[in-house]
Amino acid sequence: MEDFERRVRASFAQQRFMETLGATIHVSSAGKVEIEFAFHPTLTQQNGFVHAGAITSILDSACGYAALSVAPEGCDVLSAEFKVNLLAPAVGERFVARANVKRAGKTLIVCAADCFARKGADEKIVATMLGTIMALAPK
Amino acid sequence: MEDFERRVRASFAQQRFMETLGATIHVSSAGKVEIEFAFHPTLTQQNGFVHAGAITSILDSACGYAALSVAPEGCDVLSAEFKVNLLAPAVGERFVARANVKRAGKTLIVCAADCFARKGADEKIVATMLGTIMALAPK
Amino acid sequence: MEDFERRVRASFAQQRFMETLGATIHVSSAGKVEIEFAFHPTLTQQNGFVHAGAITSILDSACGYAALSVAPEGCDVLSAEFKVNLLAPAVGERFVARANVKRAGKTLIVCAADCFARKGADEKIVATMLGTIMALAPK
Amino acid sequence: MEDFERRVRASFAQQRFMETLGATIHVSSAGKVEIEFAFHPTLTQQNGFVHAGAITSILDSACGYAALSVAPEGCDVLSAEFKVNLLAPAVGERFVARANVKRAGKTLIVCAADCFARKGADEKIVATMLGTIMALAPK
Repeated sequence: MEDFERRVRASFAQQRFMETLGATIHVSSAGKVEIEFAFHPTLTQQNGFVHAGAITSILDSACGYAALSVAPEGCDVLSAEFKVNLLAPAVGERFVARANVKRAGKTLIVCAADCFARKGADEKIVATMLGTIMALAPK
Repeated sequence: MEDFERRVRASFAQQRFMETLGATIHVSSAGKVEIEFAFHPTLTQQNGFVHAGAITSILDSACGYAALSVAPEGCDVLSAEFKVNLLAPAVGERFVARANVKRAGKTLIVCAADCFARKGADEKIVATMLGTIMALAPK
Repeated sequence: MEDFERRVRASFAQQRFMETLGATIHVSSAGKVEIEFAFHPTLTQQNGFVHAGAITSILDSACGYAALSVAPEGCDVLSAEFKVNLLAPAVGERFVARANVKRAGKTLIVCAADCFARKGADEKIVATMLGTIMALAPK
Repeated sequence: MEDFERRVRASFAQQRFMETLGATIHVSSAGKVEIEFAFHPTLTQQNGFVHAGAITSILDSACGYAALSVAPEGCDVLSAEFKVNLLAPAVGERFVARANVKRAGKTLIVCAADCFARKGADEKIVATMLGTIMALAPK
Protein backbone atom coordinates (compact mmCIF):
# COMPACT_ATOMS: atom_id res chain seq x y z
CA MET A 1 0.00 0.00 0.00
CA GLU A 2 1.28 3.44 -0.95
CA ASP A 3 1.85 6.10 1.69
CA PHE A 4 -0.96 8.33 0.42
CA GLU A 5 -3.37 5.41 0.54
CA ARG A 6 -2.41 4.63 4.14
CA ARG A 7 -3.02 8.26 5.14
CA VAL A 8 -6.40 8.37 3.42
CA ARG A 9 -7.57 5.08 4.90
CA ALA A 10 -6.48 6.05 8.41
CA SER A 11 -8.43 9.31 8.27
CA PHE A 12 -11.50 7.76 6.61
CA ALA A 13 -11.68 5.14 9.38
CA GLN A 14 -12.15 8.01 11.85
CA GLN A 15 -15.11 9.56 9.97
CA ARG A 16 -17.95 8.14 12.03
CA PHE A 17 -20.48 9.72 9.66
CA MET A 18 -19.21 7.55 6.79
CA GLU A 19 -19.97 4.52 8.96
CA THR A 20 -23.47 5.91 9.60
CA LEU A 21 -23.97 6.06 5.82
CA GLY A 22 -22.49 2.56 5.36
CA ALA A 23 -19.80 4.03 3.10
CA THR A 24 -16.55 2.42 1.97
CA ILE A 25 -13.53 3.98 0.26
CA HIS A 26 -11.34 3.02 -2.66
CA VAL A 27 -8.16 4.92 -3.50
CA SER A 28 -7.39 4.29 -7.18
CA SER A 29 -4.23 6.41 -7.36
CA ALA A 30 -2.86 9.68 -5.99
CA GLY A 31 -5.55 12.29 -6.64
CA LYS A 32 -8.31 9.77 -7.40
CA VAL A 33 -10.70 8.52 -4.74
CA GLU A 34 -14.05 6.68 -4.78
CA ILE A 35 -16.53 6.43 -1.91
CA GLU A 36 -19.73 4.43 -2.15
CA PHE A 37 -22.69 3.21 -0.14
CA ALA A 38 -25.66 0.94 -0.76
CA PHE A 39 -29.22 2.23 -0.84
CA HIS A 40 -30.87 2.15 2.55
CA PRO A 41 -34.31 3.52 3.52
CA THR A 42 -32.75 5.49 6.41
CA LEU A 43 -31.02 7.71 3.82
CA THR A 44 -34.09 8.87 1.91
CA GLN A 45 -36.01 12.11 1.37
CA GLN A 46 -39.78 12.50 0.96
CA ASN A 47 -40.03 10.68 -2.41
CA GLY A 48 -37.93 7.69 -1.38
CA PHE A 49 -34.86 8.92 -3.32
CA VAL A 50 -31.55 9.18 -1.48
CA HIS A 51 -31.32 12.61 0.22
CA ALA A 52 -29.09 15.19 -1.51
CA GLY A 53 -27.27 15.58 1.81
CA ALA A 54 -26.22 11.91 1.86
CA ILE A 55 -25.00 12.16 -1.75
CA THR A 56 -23.16 15.39 -0.91
CA SER A 57 -21.51 13.71 2.08
CA ILE A 58 -19.70 11.11 -0.03
CA LEU A 59 -18.91 13.66 -2.76
CA ASP A 60 -17.35 15.92 -0.12
CA SER A 61 -15.36 13.16 1.60
CA ALA A 62 -14.18 11.86 -1.79
CA CYS A 63 -12.97 15.36 -2.73
CA GLY A 64 -11.30 15.80 0.65
CA TYR A 65 -9.43 12.50 0.36
CA ALA A 66 -8.46 13.11 -3.27
CA ALA A 67 -6.90 16.34 -1.95
CA LEU A 68 -5.28 14.60 1.03
CA SER A 69 -3.72 12.00 -1.28
CA VAL A 70 -1.72 14.72 -3.07
CA ALA A 71 -1.02 16.98 -0.05
CA PRO A 72 2.41 16.95 1.59
CA GLU A 73 2.91 14.31 4.31
CA GLY A 74 1.55 15.40 7.68
CA CYS A 75 -0.97 17.91 6.28
CA ASP A 76 -4.62 17.71 7.20
CA VAL A 77 -7.36 18.89 4.84
CA LEU A 78 -10.56 20.86 5.45
CA SER A 79 -13.35 21.58 2.96
CA ALA A 80 -13.60 25.34 2.44
CA GLU A 81 -16.60 25.25 0.13
CA PHE A 82 -18.36 23.19 -2.52
CA LYS A 83 -21.12 23.45 -5.04
CA VAL A 84 -23.32 20.55 -6.04
CA ASN A 85 -25.62 20.17 -9.03
CA LEU A 86 -28.26 17.48 -8.61
CA LEU A 87 -28.70 16.02 -12.08
CA ALA A 88 -31.24 13.22 -11.59
CA PRO A 89 -33.20 11.62 -8.75
CA ALA A 90 -30.86 9.44 -6.67
CA VAL A 91 -32.52 6.09 -7.40
CA GLY A 92 -30.44 2.92 -7.48
CA GLU A 93 -28.88 0.04 -5.58
CA ARG A 94 -25.51 1.65 -4.94
CA PHE A 95 -24.17 5.21 -5.09
CA VAL A 96 -20.55 5.90 -5.91
CA ALA A 97 -18.79 9.26 -5.74
CA ARG A 98 -15.62 9.58 -7.84
CA ALA A 99 -13.35 12.53 -7.13
CA ASN A 100 -10.22 13.82 -8.75
CA VAL A 101 -7.91 16.75 -8.17
CA LYS A 102 -8.42 19.52 -10.71
CA ARG A 103 -5.63 21.74 -9.45
CA ALA A 104 -3.41 21.49 -6.40
CA GLY A 105 -2.03 24.80 -5.15
CA LYS A 106 0.08 25.23 -2.04
CA THR A 107 -2.88 26.20 0.16
CA LEU A 108 -5.99 25.43 -1.89
CA ILE A 109 -6.75 22.22 -3.76
CA VAL A 110 -9.66 22.30 -6.21
CA CYS A 111 -11.42 18.98 -6.77
CA ALA A 112 -14.26 17.78 -8.99
CA ALA A 113 -16.41 14.75 -8.29
CA ASP A 114 -19.36 12.97 -9.91
CA CYS A 115 -21.83 10.70 -8.15
CA PHE A 116 -23.32 7.75 -10.03
CA ALA A 117 -26.31 5.55 -9.19
CA ARG A 118 -25.79 1.89 -10.03
CA LYS A 119 -28.50 -0.64 -10.77
CA GLY A 120 -27.10 -4.01 -11.82
CA ALA A 121 -24.63 -3.24 -14.61
CA ASP A 122 -26.15 0.20 -15.33
CA GLU A 123 -24.61 3.40 -14.09
CA LYS A 124 -26.13 6.86 -14.32
CA ILE A 125 -24.80 10.22 -13.15
CA VAL A 126 -26.97 11.79 -10.42
CA ALA A 127 -24.86 14.67 -9.08
CA THR A 128 -21.64 16.60 -9.61
CA MET A 129 -19.49 18.62 -7.21
CA LEU A 130 -16.87 21.34 -7.67
CA GLY A 131 -15.12 22.14 -4.41
CA THR A 132 -12.19 23.82 -2.71
CA ILE A 133 -10.16 22.05 -0.04
CA MET A 134 -7.68 23.77 2.23
CA ALA A 135 -4.43 22.04 3.09
CA LEU A 136 -3.37 22.67 6.69
CA ALA A 137 0.33 22.38 7.42
CA PRO A 138 1.24 20.13 10.34
CA LYS A 139 1.51 22.08 13.62
CA MET B 1 -51.58 25.65 11.93
CA GLU B 2 -51.29 27.41 8.58
CA ASP B 3 -51.66 25.47 5.34
CA PHE B 4 -48.01 25.96 4.36
CA GLU B 5 -46.89 24.68 7.74
CA ARG B 6 -49.04 21.55 7.39
CA ARG B 7 -47.54 20.86 3.94
CA VAL B 8 -43.98 21.33 5.17
CA ARG B 9 -44.48 19.15 8.25
CA ALA B 10 -46.12 16.36 6.24
CA SER B 11 -43.22 16.22 3.79
CA PHE B 12 -40.54 16.53 6.47
CA ALA B 13 -42.06 13.57 8.35
CA GLN B 14 -41.34 11.44 5.26
CA GLN B 15 -37.65 12.37 5.09
CA ARG B 16 -36.17 9.30 6.75
CA PHE B 17 -32.69 10.84 6.52
CA MET B 18 -33.75 13.69 8.83
CA GLU B 19 -34.73 11.03 11.39
CA THR B 20 -31.30 9.41 10.94
CA LEU B 21 -29.74 12.79 11.80
CA GLY B 22 -32.12 13.29 14.74
CA ALA B 23 -33.39 16.51 13.11
CA THR B 24 -36.51 18.47 13.94
CA ILE B 25 -38.19 21.28 12.00
CA HIS B 26 -39.65 24.64 12.94
CA VAL B 27 -41.61 26.75 10.46
CA SER B 28 -41.47 30.37 11.64
CA SER B 29 -43.52 31.87 8.82
CA ALA B 30 -44.01 31.45 5.06
CA GLY B 31 -40.54 31.44 3.54
CA LYS B 32 -38.70 30.92 6.85
CA VAL B 33 -37.74 27.46 8.09
CA GLU B 34 -35.37 26.12 10.77
CA ILE B 35 -34.06 22.57 11.06
CA GLU B 36 -31.81 21.46 13.89
CA PHE B 37 -30.15 18.44 15.41
CA ALA B 38 -28.08 17.72 18.51
CA PHE B 39 -24.43 16.74 18.33
CA HIS B 40 -23.95 13.00 18.14
CA PRO B 41 -20.66 11.10 17.62
CA THR B 42 -22.21 9.17 14.69
CA LEU B 43 -22.27 12.43 12.69
CA THR B 44 -18.59 13.30 12.92
CA GLN B 45 -15.61 13.54 10.58
CA GLN B 46 -11.97 12.68 11.36
CA ASN B 47 -11.41 15.52 13.90
CA GLY B 48 -14.61 14.92 15.86
CA PHE B 49 -16.39 17.92 14.27
CA VAL B 50 -19.79 17.37 12.68
CA HIS B 51 -19.32 16.29 9.04
CA ALA B 52 -19.94 18.96 6.38
CA GLY B 53 -22.37 16.53 4.76
CA ALA B 54 -24.59 16.42 7.85
CA ILE B 55 -24.56 20.21 8.09
CA THR B 56 -25.35 20.45 4.37
CA SER B 57 -28.25 18.03 4.80
CA ILE B 58 -30.14 20.31 7.18
CA LEU B 59 -29.21 23.44 5.19
CA ASP B 60 -30.58 21.77 2.06
CA SER B 61 -33.81 20.52 3.67
CA ALA B 62 -34.34 23.92 5.31
CA CYS B 63 -33.96 25.64 1.92
CA GLY B 64 -36.26 23.12 0.27
CA TYR B 65 -38.99 23.62 2.88
CA ALA B 66 -38.61 27.41 2.84
CA ALA B 67 -39.27 27.10 -0.91
CA LEU B 68 -42.17 24.68 -0.41
CA SER B 69 -43.79 27.04 2.09
CA VAL B 70 -44.14 29.72 -0.61
CA ALA B 71 -44.85 27.43 -3.60
CA PRO B 72 -48.41 27.08 -4.91
CA GLU B 73 -50.52 24.40 -3.21
CA GLY B 74 -49.91 20.93 -4.61
CA CYS B 75 -46.40 21.67 -5.90
CA ASP B 76 -43.46 19.53 -4.89
CA VAL B 77 -39.93 20.94 -4.68
CA LEU B 78 -36.56 19.52 -5.73
CA SER B 79 -33.10 20.97 -5.06
CA ALA B 80 -31.46 21.81 -8.37
CA GLU B 81 -28.13 22.93 -6.90
CA PHE B 82 -26.53 24.54 -3.91
CA LYS B 83 -23.24 25.98 -2.79
CA VAL B 84 -21.97 25.79 0.77
CA ASN B 85 -19.19 27.74 2.46
CA LEU B 86 -17.86 26.14 5.60
CA LEU B 87 -16.98 29.05 7.87
CA ALA B 88 -15.80 27.39 11.09
CA PRO B 89 -15.41 23.87 12.50
CA ALA B 90 -18.84 22.47 13.41
CA VAL B 91 -18.29 22.18 17.16
CA GLY B 92 -21.21 22.59 19.55
CA GLU B 93 -24.14 21.01 21.35
CA ARG B 94 -26.79 21.75 18.75
CA PHE B 95 -26.73 22.78 15.08
CA VAL B 96 -29.50 24.87 13.61
CA ALA B 97 -29.98 25.72 9.93
CA ARG B 98 -32.11 28.80 9.20
CA ALA B 99 -33.33 29.25 5.65
CA ASN B 100 -35.22 31.99 3.92
CA VAL B 101 -36.45 32.61 0.41
CA LYS B 102 -34.31 35.13 -1.46
CA ARG B 103 -36.42 35.18 -4.61
CA ALA B 104 -39.36 33.07 -5.70
CA GLY B 105 -39.82 32.76 -9.45
CA LYS B 106 -42.44 30.63 -11.16
CA THR B 107 -40.08 27.69 -11.71
CA LEU B 108 -36.98 28.46 -9.64
CA ILE B 109 -36.87 29.55 -6.02
CA VAL B 110 -33.54 30.84 -4.71
CA CYS B 111 -32.94 30.37 -0.99
CA ALA B 112 -30.18 31.31 1.43
CA ALA B 113 -29.49 29.56 4.71
CA ASP B 114 -27.00 29.85 7.57
CA CYS B 115 -26.08 27.09 10.00
CA PHE B 116 -25.21 27.98 13.59
CA ALA B 117 -23.53 25.91 16.30
CA ARG B 118 -25.00 26.43 19.76
CA LYS B 119 -23.23 25.89 23.03
CA GLY B 120 -25.32 26.94 26.01
CA ALA B 121 -26.47 30.47 25.23
CA ASP B 122 -23.73 31.04 22.62
CA GLU B 123 -24.38 30.81 18.91
CA LYS B 124 -21.78 30.90 16.17
CA ILE B 125 -22.15 30.68 12.40
CA VAL B 126 -20.45 27.58 10.95
CA ALA B 127 -21.75 27.39 7.37
CA THR B 128 -23.81 29.23 4.78
CA MET B 129 -25.72 27.96 1.73
CA LEU B 130 -27.00 29.62 -1.44
CA GLY B 131 -29.22 27.27 -3.41
CA THR B 132 -31.76 26.90 -6.19
CA ILE B 133 -34.94 24.90 -5.72
CA MET B 134 -37.22 23.84 -8.54
CA ALA B 135 -40.97 23.94 -8.05
CA LEU B 136 -42.71 21.03 -9.75
CA ALA B 137 -46.35 21.60 -10.71
CA PRO B 138 -48.77 18.91 -9.52
CA LYS B 139 -49.24 16.17 -12.14
CA MET C 1 -23.68 25.00 -41.34
CA GLU C 2 -25.90 23.02 -38.99
CA ASP C 3 -29.09 24.52 -37.59
CA PHE C 4 -27.79 24.67 -34.04
CA GLU C 5 -24.69 26.50 -35.23
CA ARG C 6 -26.80 29.06 -37.06
CA ARG C 7 -28.89 29.68 -33.95
CA VAL C 8 -25.83 30.07 -31.74
CA ARG C 9 -24.06 32.43 -34.14
CA ALA C 10 -27.15 34.59 -34.61
CA SER C 11 -27.56 35.06 -30.85
CA PHE C 12 -23.84 35.57 -30.20
CA ALA C 13 -23.75 38.34 -32.82
CA GLN C 14 -26.29 40.24 -30.68
CA GLN C 15 -24.20 40.04 -27.48
CA ARG C 16 -22.65 43.50 -27.57
CA PHE C 17 -20.62 42.68 -24.46
CA MET C 18 -18.76 39.94 -26.36
CA GLU C 19 -17.76 42.59 -28.91
CA THR C 20 -16.55 44.81 -26.04
CA LEU C 21 -14.32 41.93 -24.91
CA GLY C 22 -13.15 41.26 -28.49
CA ALA C 23 -14.52 37.71 -28.23
CA THR C 24 -15.18 35.25 -31.05
CA ILE C 25 -17.12 31.97 -30.98
CA HIS C 26 -16.50 28.51 -32.35
CA VAL C 27 -19.17 25.81 -32.29
CA SER C 28 -17.40 22.44 -32.46
CA SER C 29 -20.52 20.28 -32.35
CA ALA C 30 -23.92 20.20 -30.64
CA GLY C 31 -23.24 20.74 -26.94
CA LYS C 32 -19.66 21.96 -27.42
CA VAL C 33 -18.81 25.65 -27.72
CA GLU C 34 -15.60 27.69 -27.48
CA ILE C 35 -15.35 31.44 -26.95
CA GLU C 36 -12.04 33.28 -26.89
CA PHE C 37 -10.48 36.70 -26.74
CA ALA C 38 -6.99 38.15 -26.93
CA PHE C 39 -5.31 39.83 -23.99
CA HIS C 40 -5.95 43.55 -23.86
CA PRO C 41 -4.94 46.01 -21.12
CA THR C 42 -8.56 47.26 -20.87
CA LEU C 43 -9.54 43.86 -19.43
CA THR C 44 -7.15 43.77 -16.49
CA GLN C 45 -7.36 43.89 -12.70
CA GLN C 46 -4.88 45.52 -10.30
CA ASN C 47 -1.96 43.15 -11.00
CA GLY C 48 -2.26 43.31 -14.79
CA PHE C 49 -3.93 39.86 -15.01
CA VAL C 50 -7.19 39.55 -16.89
CA HIS C 51 -10.10 40.32 -14.52
CA ALA C 52 -12.05 37.32 -13.21
CA GLY C 53 -15.20 39.02 -14.49
CA ALA C 54 -13.95 39.01 -18.08
CA ILE C 55 -12.98 35.34 -17.80
CA THR C 56 -16.38 34.56 -16.26
CA SER C 57 -18.12 36.39 -19.11
CA ILE C 58 -16.78 34.04 -21.78
CA LEU C 59 -17.25 30.98 -19.55
CA ASP C 60 -20.89 32.00 -19.03
CA SER C 61 -21.61 32.74 -22.69
CA ALA C 62 -19.89 29.49 -23.72
CA CYS C 63 -22.09 27.53 -21.28
CA GLY C 64 -25.20 29.36 -22.46
CA TYR C 65 -24.48 28.59 -26.11
CA ALA C 66 -23.55 24.98 -25.39
CA ALA C 67 -27.01 24.74 -23.79
CA LEU C 68 -28.69 26.59 -26.68
CA SER C 69 -27.09 24.23 -29.20
CA VAL C 70 -28.94 21.26 -27.64
CA ALA C 71 -32.20 23.04 -26.73
CA PRO C 72 -35.30 22.54 -28.89
CA GLU C 73 -35.64 24.90 -31.88
CA GLY C 74 -37.10 28.27 -30.91
CA CYS C 75 -36.07 28.11 -27.25
CA ASP C 76 -34.06 30.87 -25.68
CA VAL C 77 -31.66 30.24 -22.79
CA LEU C 78 -30.93 32.18 -19.61
CA SER C 79 -28.20 31.53 -17.05
CA ALA C 80 -29.80 30.70 -13.71
CA GLU C 81 -26.56 30.42 -11.75
CA PHE C 82 -22.92 29.49 -12.02
CA LYS C 83 -19.91 28.87 -9.84
CA VAL C 84 -16.38 29.66 -10.90
CA ASN C 85 -13.09 28.49 -9.41
CA LEU C 86 -10.12 30.65 -10.32
CA LEU C 87 -7.21 28.23 -10.61
CA ALA C 88 -4.30 30.42 -11.70
CA PRO C 89 -3.63 34.06 -12.57
CA ALA C 90 -5.07 34.84 -16.01
CA VAL C 91 -1.79 35.61 -17.77
CA GLY C 92 -1.39 34.89 -21.48
CA GLU C 93 -1.86 36.03 -25.04
CA ARG C 94 -5.27 34.51 -25.60
CA PHE C 95 -8.00 33.13 -23.33
CA VAL C 96 -10.31 30.39 -24.50
CA ALA C 97 -13.38 29.09 -22.67
CA ARG C 98 -14.53 25.58 -23.65
CA ALA C 99 -18.00 24.53 -22.53
CA ASN C 100 -19.89 21.29 -22.80
CA VAL C 101 -23.30 20.09 -21.69
CA LYS C 102 -23.13 17.87 -18.64
CA ARG C 103 -26.83 17.07 -18.52
CA ALA C 104 -29.76 18.42 -20.49
CA GLY C 105 -33.10 18.21 -18.73
CA LYS C 106 -36.35 19.59 -20.08
CA THR C 107 -36.10 22.87 -18.17
CA LEU C 108 -32.56 22.97 -16.77
CA ILE C 109 -29.35 22.31 -18.65
CA VAL C 110 -26.19 21.85 -16.58
CA CYS C 111 -22.94 22.82 -18.29
CA ALA C 112 -19.27 22.70 -17.35
CA ALA C 113 -16.57 24.89 -18.87
CA ASP C 114 -12.84 25.41 -18.48
CA CYS C 115 -10.89 28.53 -19.42
CA PHE C 116 -7.34 28.22 -20.70
CA ALA C 117 -4.64 30.85 -21.11
CA ARG C 118 -2.53 30.40 -24.24
CA LYS C 119 0.98 31.64 -24.76
CA GLY C 120 2.44 30.51 -28.08
CA ALA C 121 1.87 26.76 -28.21
CA ASP C 122 1.39 26.47 -24.42
CA GLU C 123 -2.00 26.19 -22.82
CA LYS C 124 -2.77 26.32 -19.11
CA ILE C 125 -6.07 26.08 -17.25
CA VAL C 126 -6.93 29.28 -15.36
CA ALA C 127 -10.58 28.83 -14.35
CA THR C 128 -13.45 26.37 -14.34
CA MET C 129 -17.24 26.90 -14.25
CA LEU C 130 -20.16 24.69 -13.29
CA GLY C 131 -23.46 26.33 -14.19
CA THR C 132 -27.19 25.90 -14.68
CA ILE C 133 -28.97 27.26 -17.74
CA MET C 134 -32.72 27.53 -18.07
CA ALA C 135 -34.38 26.75 -21.39
CA LEU C 136 -37.30 29.06 -22.12
CA ALA C 137 -39.96 27.67 -24.45
CA PRO C 138 -40.87 29.93 -27.39
CA LYS C 139 -43.79 32.23 -26.56
CA MET D 1 -10.04 59.10 4.63
CA GLU D 2 -9.39 55.90 6.58
CA ASP D 3 -6.42 53.70 5.79
CA PHE D 4 -8.55 50.85 4.49
CA GLU D 5 -10.38 53.23 2.16
CA ARG D 6 -7.08 54.54 0.79
CA ARG D 7 -5.88 50.99 0.09
CA VAL D 8 -9.13 50.01 -1.63
CA ARG D 9 -9.22 53.15 -3.78
CA ALA D 10 -5.57 52.78 -4.82
CA SER D 11 -6.13 49.19 -5.98
CA PHE D 12 -9.46 49.93 -7.67
CA ALA D 13 -7.83 52.72 -9.69
CA GLN D 14 -5.53 50.09 -11.21
CA GLN D 15 -8.37 47.81 -12.34
CA ARG D 16 -8.55 48.85 -15.99
CA PHE D 17 -11.54 46.55 -16.51
CA MET D 18 -13.60 48.62 -14.04
CA GLU D 19 -12.87 51.66 -16.23
CA THR D 20 -14.02 49.66 -19.28
CA LEU D 21 -17.32 49.03 -17.49
CA GLY D 22 -17.57 52.67 -16.39
CA ALA D 23 -17.62 51.55 -12.76
CA THR D 24 -17.08 53.64 -9.63
CA ILE D 25 -16.48 52.53 -6.05
CA HIS D 26 -17.84 53.61 -2.69
CA VAL D 27 -16.39 52.32 0.58
CA SER D 28 -19.06 52.69 3.27
CA SER D 29 -17.05 51.23 6.13
CA ALA D 30 -14.52 48.47 6.79
CA GLY D 31 -16.01 45.32 5.26
CA LYS D 32 -18.66 47.14 3.23
CA VAL D 33 -18.07 48.15 -0.40
CA GLU D 34 -20.31 49.27 -3.27
CA ILE D 35 -19.41 49.33 -6.97
CA GLU D 36 -21.76 50.62 -9.63
CA PHE D 37 -22.02 51.42 -13.32
CA ALA D 38 -24.61 52.96 -15.60
CA PHE D 39 -26.38 51.00 -18.30
CA HIS D 40 -24.57 51.10 -21.61
CA PRO D 41 -25.41 49.16 -24.80
CA THR D 42 -21.81 47.86 -25.00
CA LEU D 43 -22.49 45.78 -21.88
CA THR D 44 -25.51 43.83 -23.14
CA GLN D 45 -26.36 40.24 -24.02
CA GLN D 46 -28.70 39.06 -26.81
CA ASN D 47 -31.93 40.44 -25.26
CA GLY D 48 -30.52 43.87 -24.47
CA PHE D 49 -30.16 43.09 -20.72
CA VAL D 50 -26.79 43.70 -19.08
CA HIS D 51 -24.61 40.59 -19.52
CA ALA D 52 -24.27 38.34 -16.45
CA GLY D 53 -20.50 38.66 -16.85
CA ALA D 54 -20.60 42.45 -16.41
CA ILE D 55 -22.80 42.07 -13.31
CA THR D 56 -20.46 39.38 -11.98
CA SER D 57 -17.46 41.66 -12.54
CA ILE D 58 -18.70 44.33 -10.13
CA LEU D 59 -19.97 41.72 -7.65
CA ASP D 60 -16.51 40.12 -7.68
CA SER D 61 -14.58 43.37 -7.34
CA ALA D 62 -16.92 44.53 -4.57
CA CYS D 63 -16.32 41.26 -2.67
CA GLY D 64 -12.58 41.51 -3.22
CA TYR D 65 -12.44 45.07 -1.91
CA ALA D 66 -14.71 44.29 1.04
CA ALA D 67 -12.15 41.60 1.89
CA LEU D 68 -9.20 43.93 1.29
CA SER D 69 -10.71 46.52 3.61
CA VAL D 70 -10.53 44.09 6.55
CA ALA D 71 -7.25 42.34 5.61
CA PRO D 72 -4.03 43.23 7.45
CA GLU D 73 -2.07 46.17 6.02
CA GLY D 74 0.12 45.18 3.09
CA CYS D 75 -1.90 42.10 2.12
CA ASP D 76 -3.21 41.66 -1.40
CA VAL D 77 -6.40 39.72 -2.12
CA LEU D 78 -7.28 37.23 -4.86
CA SER D 79 -10.69 35.71 -5.61
CA ALA D 80 -10.50 31.95 -5.13
CA GLU D 81 -14.04 31.21 -6.22
CA PHE D 82 -17.56 32.59 -6.33
CA LYS D 83 -21.08 31.52 -7.09
CA VAL D 84 -23.67 33.80 -8.61
CA ASN D 85 -27.44 33.39 -8.78
CA LEU D 86 -29.09 35.52 -11.44
CA LEU D 87 -32.44 36.49 -9.94
CA ALA D 88 -34.00 38.75 -12.56
CA PRO D 89 -33.10 40.23 -15.96
CA ALA D 90 -30.57 43.04 -15.51
CA VAL D 91 -32.74 45.89 -16.77
CA GLY D 92 -32.29 49.39 -15.37
CA GLU D 93 -30.46 52.69 -15.51
CA ARG D 94 -27.76 51.87 -12.98
CA PHE D 95 -26.43 48.66 -11.44
CA VAL D 96 -24.97 48.63 -7.96
CA ALA D 97 -23.19 45.73 -6.29
CA ARG D 98 -23.07 45.82 -2.47
CA ALA D 99 -20.66 43.48 -0.74
CA ASN D 100 -19.99 42.66 2.85
CA VAL D 101 -17.67 40.34 4.70
CA LYS D 102 -19.47 37.28 6.03
CA ARG D 103 -16.45 35.81 7.82
CA ALA D 104 -12.81 36.81 7.82
CA GLY D 105 -10.39 33.99 8.56
CA LYS D 106 -6.61 34.31 8.52
CA THR D 107 -6.27 33.01 4.96
CA LEU D 108 -9.80 32.92 3.55
CA ILE D 109 -12.37 35.71 3.66
CA VAL D 110 -15.94 34.79 2.75
CA CYS D 111 -18.03 37.61 1.29
CA ALA D 112 -21.62 37.98 0.15
CA ALA D 113 -22.85 40.58 -2.32
CA ASP D 114 -26.13 41.56 -3.95
CA CYS D 115 -26.54 43.47 -7.21
CA PHE D 116 -29.46 45.83 -7.64
CA ALA D 117 -30.87 47.47 -10.76
CA ARG D 118 -32.01 51.06 -10.24
CA LYS D 119 -34.58 52.89 -12.28
CA GLY D 120 -35.35 56.34 -10.92
CA ALA D 121 -36.08 55.80 -7.23
CA ASP D 122 -36.83 52.07 -7.67
CA GLU D 123 -34.33 49.39 -6.80
CA LYS D 124 -34.66 45.68 -7.53
CA ILE D 125 -32.31 42.80 -6.78
CA VAL D 126 -30.99 41.13 -9.95
CA ALA D 127 -28.15 38.90 -8.72
CA THR D 128 -26.43 37.59 -5.60
CA MET D 129 -22.89 36.30 -5.03
CA LEU D 130 -21.30 34.14 -2.36
CA GLY D 131 -17.53 34.04 -2.75
CA THR D 132 -14.20 33.17 -1.18
CA ILE D 133 -11.26 35.58 -1.26
CA MET D 134 -7.73 34.63 -0.36
CA ALA D 135 -5.56 37.05 1.59
CA LEU D 136 -1.94 37.02 0.42
CA ALA D 137 0.61 38.11 2.99
CA PRO D 138 3.05 40.79 1.83
CA LYS D 139 6.22 39.28 0.33
